[in-house]
Amino acid sequence: MVVKAAEMKKETRSAWRGGDGAIDCRHLAPQGNPPKWRFAAVLEFDPGDSIGEHVHSGETELYYIMEGTGTVWDNGAPVEVGPGDAIFTGGGAAHSIKNTGEGVMRLLALVVQE
Amino acid sequence: MVVKAAEMKKETRSAWRGGDGAIDCRHLAPQGNPPKWRFAAVLEFDPGDSIGEHVHSGETELYYIMEGTGTVWDNGAPVEVGPGDAIFTGGGAAHSIKNTGEGVMRLLALVVQE
Repeated sequence: MVVKAAEMKKETRSAWRGGDGAIDCRHLAPQGNPPKWRFAAVLEFDPGDSIGEHVHSGETELYYIMEGTGTVWDNGAPVEVGPGDAIFTGGGAAHSIKNTGEGVMRLLALVVQE
Repeated sequence: MVVKAAEMKKETRSAWRGGDGAIDCRHLAPQGNPPKWRFAAVLEFDPGDSIGEHVHSGETELYYIMEGTGTVWDNGAPVEVGPGDAIFTGGGAAHSIKNTGEGVMRLLALVVQE
């Protein structure tokens, strides 16, 4: 199944998991993700935008940073991230993420259930 | 788990699935992928490079195109792809992919088992 970028469903999520700002979200598979792929989207954060802390149990989330810079709190520990970095969160771990840079931060977010 | 781009393991794969050229591969989780994540890497294709046709059963592969243009054969049917496009292949479907553009084609490839 090929999904062209122009066909992807867009939405904007505010106060996501208690985070700041409004994050633009482009869903990779608007007609329905493959089995177990609970979430698959490209997210765009303006400076200061964030997703608040949350836990992943029975599933793993990958954030793959494509553009910009930010801070990830990986089980509470802050780590600076930028283009090409990957963040895997599963097995009951928690994370949050914030655009702490000066430009847009763009990442691919994928949540796959076990 | 945060994996910085500079720490990722690199390798080059030639004649991948019977394809052409040599594809640079950067593994997102060199210390071991999360459970069920059989493969997670950024792939870089020079013009003409390809991965030959292969089937995904009991798992789904996502190609997310980040840079450049190419052709995907989705169960044999050719589709032109470019930045922002997503290709999901699973449930016994087959695909192959070739850089049919003039510059580098870069994509994220993820295979997750069901």
